[in-house]
Amino acid sequence: MMIIHLHLKTKGSDGISTEFGTSRDLDGTNDISYNITYNKPDTDVKKGIKKPFTEVIKANIGDAHAMGQRPITFLRQVVALCTYPNLLDSPSFPEDAKKRARRILQGCGGNSLGSYSASQGINCIREDVASYIERRDGGVPADPDNIYLTTGASDGIATILKILVSGGGKSRTGVMIPIPQYPLYSAVISELDAIQVNYYLDEENCWALDVNELRRSLNEAKTYCNPKVLCIINPGNPTGQVQNRKCIEDVIHFAWEEKLFLLADEVYQDNVYSEGCQFHSFKKILYEMGPEYYNNVELASFHSTSKGYMGECGYRGGYMEVLNLHPEIKGQLVKLLSVRLCPPVSGQAAMDIVVNPPVPGEESYSQFIKEKESVLNNLAKKAKLTEDMFNKVPGVHCNPLQGAMYAFPRIFIPSKAIEEAKAHKMAPDMFYCMKLLEETGICVVPGSGFGQREGSYHFRMTILPPVEKLKILLEKVKDFHIKFLEKYA
Amino acid sequence: MMIIHLHLKTKGSDGISTEFGTSRDLDGTNDISYNITYNKPDTDVKKGIKKPFTEVIKANIGDAHAMGQRPITFLRQVVALCTYPNLLDSPSFPEDAKKRARRILQGCGGNSLGSYSASQGINCIREDVASYIERRDGGVPADPDNIYLTTGASDGIATILKILVSGGGKSRTGVMIPIPQYPLYSAVISELDAIQVNYYLDEENCWALDVNELRRSLNEAKTYCNPKVLCIINPGNPTGQVQNRKCIEDVIHFAWEEKLFLLADEVYQDNVYSEGCQFHSFKKILYEMGPEYYNNVELASFHSTSKGYMGECGYRGGYMEVLNLHPEIKGQLVKLLSVRLCPPVSGQAAMDIVVNPPVPGEESYSQFIKEKESVLNNLAKKAKLTEDMFNKVPGVHCNPLQGAMYAFPRIFIPSKAIEEAKAHKMAPDMFYCMKLLEETGICVVPGSGFGQREGSYHFRMTILPPVEKLKILLEKVKDFHIKFLEKYA
Ligand SMILES: Cc1ncc(COP(=O)(O)O)c(C=O)c1O
Ligand SMILES: Cc1ncc(COP(=O)(O)O)c(C=O)c1O
Repeated sequence: MMIIHLHLKTKGSDGISTEFGTSRDLDGTNDISYNITYNKPDTDVKKGIKKPFTEVIKANIGDAHAMGQRPITFLRQVVALCTYPNLLDSPSFPEDAKKRARRILQGCGGNSLGSYSASQGINCIREDVASYIERRDGGVPADPDNIYLTTGASDGIATILKILVSGGGKSRTGVMIPIPQYPLYSAVISELDAIQVNYYLDEENCWALDVNELRRSLNEAKTYCNPKVLCIINPGNPTGQVQNRKCIEDVIHFAWEEKLFLLADEVYQDNVYSEGCQFHSFKKILYEMGPEYYNNVELASFHSTSKGYMGECGYRGGYMEVLNLHPEIKGQLVKLLSVRLCPPVSGQAAMDIVVNPPVPGEESYSQFIKEKESVLNNLAKKAKLTEDMFNKVPGVHCNPLQGAMYAFPRIFIPSKAIEEAKAHKMAPDMFYCMKLLEETGICVVPGSGFGQREGSYHFRMTILPPVEKLKILLEKVKDFHIKFLEKYA
Repeated sequence: MMIIHLHLKTKGSDGISTEFGTSRDLDGTNDISYNITYNKPDTDVKKGIKKPFTEVIKANIGDAHAMGQRPITFLRQVVALCTYPNLLDSPSFPEDAKKRARRILQGCGGNSLGSYSASQGINCIREDVASYIERRDGGVPADPDNIYLTTGASDGIATILKILVSGGGKSRTGVMIPIPQYPLYSAVISELDAIQVNYYLDEENCWALDVNELRRSLNEAKTYCNPKVLCIINPGNPTGQVQNRKCIEDVIHFAWEEKLFLLADEVYQDNVYSEGCQFHSFKKILYEMGPEYYNNVELASFHSTSKGYMGECGYRGGYMEVLNLHPEIKGQLVKLLSVRLCPPVSGQAAMDIVVNPPVPGEESYSQFIKEKESVLNNLAKKAKLTEDMFNKVPGVHCNPLQGAMYAFPRIFIPSKAIEEAKAHKMAPDMFYCMKLLEETGICVVPGSGFGQREGSYHFRMTILPPVEKLKILLEKVKDFHIKFLEKYA
């Protein structure tokens, strides 16, 4: 385990001191933790060790509020009303928010957010999730019984993987994951002693998923394990691609053919920016392919309060919809969930508002839509800006950011830099990212934390900083990169 | 797995319908789930299948708010202020609540509950926890670095056990747990494929923990596994005993001698009722025993927002303090936590108020103390009432409820009833509890879910219903028991 401590400044007495813990994008094998403490710029930093920057910009984590995005007013109003029901009498809260809060509280034991809920989540919220899915998927039916509220998507993904993994030796469960991947997957697979089976996304083709590559990967894996689960992240993290309809059909057909459990990580379903791209849920396409598919393919799909336009990471809200689960496995799932009692109830309430936002005609609708579209339009603008800027830098190539909230540019690292990295026992892109941090204060995550084709190097940067800050950041990365190329030419 | 569905009534159109999911006290081997739906008494129930009662009383789960306990006003005010910071300008919130809310928000990325916190929890809250522990323990130092905020105590306990379990065959980690136990332990041990090592609490001696019994259990376990962890629940669930100082000293000495990791589940630290009983933390006694002990014994202690006088189960707030953890194990812990991102931030905020409540001189102090003492005095009254009532029933023996929130009476089950239970393939106390439920609507958990000495039978009942309801409940149990004895005489 490699931990890099970059203490820029310890806590001052007057400064607002915020410690940013570890970079949470950890890989089972390369544990890259930045431990950064920073204070108000222009005061304490200058008193500390001289650094060529006055502020650390954390572009390493998909955490919108930490980057200054404001919460969606309606969501917070409802959660505040549920938290402190005296506010239900306050004239300063809108009626539609009160209506939502009353509904949620009626679903809580003793009408309190402080009761344990059923382990699967509050009934009426699961009903709201099911209605949301039906609307999203153009009427394809959704059964609240198949919905499980979770402690963020992380918890859902880890739980499902846990009940699917079994066997020993050559019959140990293999779990297919994209490379590059979101490192929750490799970490959980390693925790569970399952077998990680890599399939590579096609960088030359906008990080598309190719079924031939799935087949290659599966066939290879069959020689050393029992591959049973196929994980897909759509829209992609860290790669930002949005899968087209045909690709999803191919994947579903493949899973059906090979009897693979499909795990569709769809937490970025609201984050689609590129013209011509559209989010298609696996569930919807599965139903459109007919009963032979929708009665047989096992599918778990995940959503979260953390991403989208609301960015409520701290609430740890999420749900999963699970289809065609074998009754015995379902029994295990229910049991596992019940041991942990229940997901945080305020997170369940937040999830409810994500799936049941104000509708036209309601008092809060216009403000809600304004806030939502402002976030999404900004993200779309920043996605384009980032792609364009990166592609102007020599030695950098960046695929379109079709969705999600990250750029994952490919960077050329000169061989002299690779040698120096080796001398420091660092992955070359780790070396690059450390230099970037030391010289500019910009914190990004090396591609090696996500996995990449041998010999290629990347980093992941969020597009969450406000537009003006993002522009400065991109300029700084550009200048740094050019100097880096010169230095190691 | 045995699941008992007792659908008393499905959802009505006008009635307030609340589904109580599974009884969450599950045992690794006996999974006892009650699936109960009930509606407003006197309306829907009467329209449904005729039952000899009009209301189900859930005395099976330690969930105070679900039983009608009102939240502590100050705690909810602070969390509401954090949720919707516009309220910081409202004159209807007290200044001391606003002060707490500002402090918490300053610890959050972007001053929002919606940001991921550091995986270990928000810094200033960990500092508040450390100060709380120092105050509680009469000045024994506590280091915020050793504090980890968790998703309820459940998550902390499961996480610590996970990093401690290793080995295979005879060197597989053994985890010593009390019998009767809180079934989270057996469930997690079974999830982790660890070895459950039972030590029995002494029912004849008020469920005391006896070091001779620990030694017996340990020596036996050494023949088939590698016992490394010793779990203690104090005050006890389901048994309600409060350990005295001498007993804790003995346990610590034993753990030191045998190099056992001590896991002290102290979630009921505020729930002590009996005269002459007092809560002693393992941490405090460890320090008082001197450096040979406090520099060596590995100890994890757990606390939660769910119990005490606040009963905030739904927030999933908690912390653990971990002492003398091996640096390598600590690295694993940090990594495991970081994969799951962070505990729910609103639960962290709730935990902050539990450890940092209003103090004398502050505006909210008098109301806070009134609310807190009202809950605790009521619990104390109900503890005594319950003990006294049960001990008047022939064939029932109940130890004093010194602490926590449960009675765990021993019940005599006639051999004819045992036979009938066997014919139904049920544990005799399960049979008893099902009959009780069917005939009275009172839901309690059979002792076999917690473990008990072979041939002895118990059930666990919470003392959370309001006094008047509890009295009726106890009368009903008494009548039921007498009829049961007659029927199977
Ligand atoms: C692809 C993907 N899946 C799951 C998660 C987990 O999100 P959470 O646990 O906050 O819901 C993330 C978070 O960044 C993600 O990017
Ligand atoms: C002894 C004990 N430990 C731990 C817990 C878990 O509490 P939570 O996860 O709600 O903090 C409970 C809950 O009843 C308990 O009784």
